[in-house]
Amino acid sequence: MKILDCTLRDGGYYTNWDFDNDLVKVYFESFNHLPIDFLEIGYKAFAENYYKGEFYYLPLFLIKKIKSISNKNLAILLNGKDLFESNIEDLLLPCVGLIDLVRVAIDPKDLNKSLTLLKRIKSLGFKVALNVMYMSKWKTMKSFLTDLPLVNETCDFFYMVDSYGSVYPEDVKEITQTVKSILSIPLGFHGHNNLEMALVNSLTALEYGVEIIDSTVTGMGRGAGNLKTELILTHLSSKGLLEFDFNYLSNLVDKFSQLQKLHNWGTNLPYMVSGSNSLPQKDVMEWITKRFYSLNSIVEALQNQKSNLLDKPRVERFKPENKFENVLLIGGGNSVQQHFEAIRSFVYTNKSSITIVHASSTNAYLFKDLDFIPQYFCLVGNEGHRLERVYDNSPFKGICILPPPPRKLGIYKPEIAKDKIFEIEQSTINHPINDTHTILAFEISSILEAKNVYLVGYDGYPKESITSKMHEMFIENQNIFNLVKNRFKLISLLPTLYDLKITSLYSLIK
Amino acid sequence: MKILDCTLRDGGYYTNWDFDNDLVKVYFESFNHLPIDFLEIGYKAFAENYYKGEFYYLPLFLIKKIKSISNKNLAILLNGKDLFESNIEDLLLPCVGLIDLVRVAIDPKDLNKSLTLLKRIKSLGFKVALNVMYMSKWKTMKSFLTDLPLVNETCDFFYMVDSYGSVYPEDVKEITQTVKSILSIPLGFHGHNNLEMALVNSLTALEYGVEIIDSTVTGMGRGAGNLKTELILTHLSSKGLLEFDFNYLSNLVDKFSQLQKLHNWGTNLPYMVSGSNSLPQKDVMEWITKRFYSLNSIVEALQNQKSNLLDKPRVERFKPENKFENVLLIGGGNSVQQHFEAIRSFVYTNKSSITIVHASSTNAYLFKDLDFIPQYFCLVGNEGHRLERVYDNSPFKGICILPPPPRKLGIYKPEIAKDKIFEIEQSTINHPINDTHTILAFEISSILEAKNVYLVGYDGYPKESITSKMHEMFIENQNIFNLVKNRFKLISLLPTLYDLKITSLYSLIK
Repeated sequence: MKILDCTLRDGGYYTNWDFDNDLVKVYFESFNHLPIDFLEIGYKAFAENYYKGEFYYLPLFLIKKIKSISNKNLAILLNGKDLFESNIEDLLLPCVGLIDLVRVAIDPKDLNKSLTLLKRIKSLGFKVALNVMYMSKWKTMKSFLTDLPLVNETCDFFYMVDSYGSVYPEDVKEITQTVKSILSIPLGFHGHNNLEMALVNSLTALEYGVEIIDSTVTGMGRGAGNLKTELILTHLSSKGLLEFDFNYLSNLVDKFSQLQKLHNWGTNLPYMVSGSNSLPQKDVMEWITKRFYSLNSIVEALQNQKSNLLDKPRVERFKPENKFENVLLIGGGNSVQQHFEAIRSFVYTNKSSITIVHASSTNAYLFKDLDFIPQYFCLVGNEGHRLERVYDNSPFKGICILPPPPRKLGIYKPEIAKDKIFEIEQSTINHPINDTHTILAFEISSILEAKNVYLVGYDGYPKESITSKMHEMFIENQNIFNLVKNRFKLISLLPTLYDLKITSLYSLIK
Repeated sequence: MKILDCTLRDGGYYTNWDFDNDLVKVYFESFNHLPIDFLEIGYKAFAENYYKGEFYYLPLFLIKKIKSISNKNLAILLNGKDLFESNIEDLLLPCVGLIDLVRVAIDPKDLNKSLTLLKRIKSLGFKVALNVMYMSKWKTMKSFLTDLPLVNETCDFFYMVDSYGSVYPEDVKEITQTVKSILSIPLGFHGHNNLEMALVNSLTALEYGVEIIDSTVTGMGRGAGNLKTELILTHLSSKGLLEFDFNYLSNLVDKFSQLQKLHNWGTNLPYMVSGSNSLPQKDVMEWITKRFYSLNSIVEALQNQKSNLLDKPRVERFKPENKFENVLLIGGGNSVQQHFEAIRSFVYTNKSSITIVHASSTNAYLFKDLDFIPQYFCLVGNEGHRLERVYDNSPFKGICILPPPPRKLGIYKPEIAKDKIFEIEQSTINHPINDTHTILAFEISSILEAKNVYLVGYDGYPKESITSKMHEMFIENQNIFNLVKNRFKLISLLPTLYDLKITSLYSLIK
């Protein structure tokens, strides 16, 4: 049996494929003393629009540096969907003589069209592995199984990938037996750990004839992560199948454990739910690592995905009868409470032409009694729960607005507002995420045909201490302001750290 | 099948069996809506010398409070070794009518003598479960298997406990089949997660006829922890075997995930090594949670335990020819560097009657050139590695001293000192831990027949920011000073936060 460690490649999803030099040094030095056969050092890819670091592009100087400090066979992974016969040599010619194994990851439906590519890669002198995703779905894919024998002539390894982290040992056994009856080349298995099945699945795969398995240090890898290198090595050592110096292993694990404290990879309830229901973990990882969603709303979103509730419009579209020239947009900042008397006075002064849009419900409690003008509430993430807490037993007279479908992330709809919930028909602001508080607030303002949007409570966070998530939200909000500033006249009425035009609230009231 | 959640009982190892009231409230409220059959709410025990909190003793008011907010069957766990026929009623009579299931945990060698106890408990009206530890060892225990049929008449459940977290599905299958052929009462399984086998082992147990399994929220439990309640529930839900509202589950998991950030339960390399080699995890947990040991030294210790190297004296005993009236004891504090010129002058002034003992090697580099008096180094934990770094290529003239055997925790012996390492014969200071830097330094001072121990570098940590581990070390050191203050005249020569007599270094030099 062989082991391939793909920590830098798969762990890069958490670090944008940049790793500290010291970590990289410890990684390669430690593995020089550990019984691992291949190290997959990264992707090799063409330029993309988002920033990704050195282990995503693997420039030649980096490969050469690695080659000079590592005594292992080196592998890289290519994304099959980005490859064409015309561009494959641009990508791979610099790797000849340095990289031993080129792996190509594909969707099973692309099996047939990938074959000529694989031959071309092999003709350059590399060993070639085909990593086919979604193994749990193969048995229902007739044409995939029909074409599978062709892989015998084109590849050195055929890898079964448990993309969702959803398979159990009995599935591994069945799929391995099926594939083994078709293919004569060595098989591989790449397991995910959503259900903590990565080790037992890998052992089952080996038992039924798989010859190479993937692992990563501390399981670092997209979403719930992988079989842990230290777990498979410890297991094999305790069974007397391998010998090595645990000092090298624990030094290595120590380094990555420190990094794990920062990024928190590993399984948790949302990954368990996505795994056990064969749902993609890409969204889950985005929700967990980047944004403010509660575990609850993520789990609910996954339950929705499971039930295919995504695209079904379940509420009426938002088509207001009245339009308003002015919107007072309320953020979650402390300044709203501090300046509330003045805000109330401003609203009263403009009551014939103004309405209120609550981006966050944090400050909504202050406005409960202002029932002489309409109030709109952005229903994203946790806001439904928050609204229930604010209104408790008092009557709710506002209108709740949902982001446009498909709404991947489940949104809690509060009982108190049940006949007052509407949805935006479609996004009009071109932003990668359409369900943030601020985007939704501007979509509402657009539909209300507002010309002026007055902002309060967009303080930009206090200076003393902010989390990195708050910092990210700040940047996201600023980008949104920049996107809509030609559509509305944006005016902050209170001090703000955002780059916004300011007119003091106190200059506008008597 | 039934599930018993024992989070508060088994998780108590991390919190000393005290939990925040809010967490407790969420725990019981959430489970009111989740398909779990039993909640094991704690131990019930007689007074012990160390502090343990409310869920270890379960006073009657607490049980009543729980009963009033929970709709579940309640269980408690008793430690078999603390029980006698004469005291069992004191412990259990208050629980009658409140507790449904009494579980008794025993060592398999105590099976026979526990039977009358179990009958006595059953006669009080409780359901009784016998939890027998070390299931991986049973097959070699003839008398245990011979006596096992007697359990049929005394218990309602017989639990197989994977104490080391070392069993694999094939072991579970074999042991379950053996036990099932002997017993007619329902079987239970309590799995640990060292090798991430808790779920697959539990599922295997159920497949072969086990009827009740244990789990804990986020796996919280001694050492590497348990089957995760959210994992088994998510699994059963995805298979259509259970239905419940995931909101309750995710609320519950959220609460415990926050606590986990503080205590870091779950598996890691040392627990994998102890699990895969069937070594007790009690020590590992102590080393990982309480003290300053590196992953490396813990793994090495476990490798030593595996090889039974513990009790073999591998080095000569420390029997110095020269005795010294005065010891200068050097701690790791910053003050040593700051006042080094004065310290050197003090040593020189007293050179005929003084020697140096380095509790920590942190400041040893300063003393490299002081070769006119002997220097002793306490070789505990990581000090060997540190010493190598300090001496690098320069000649080492000191003497290294090991704590007395058995040395559970592996100690790295630096190559540079290889013929200069001796061990203490036996502890003379009555302290629960005999391998701390400070204890060892005083054992050395004792053997050197010192009357006065002058301390430098025992600063007691800076005031601005200390970790809770540093705080614990402070308390430990202070306790040690209190233990030895009648044996030596202890004098700190530099400012210190410890309660020590002080004589300024500058008053003793010219």
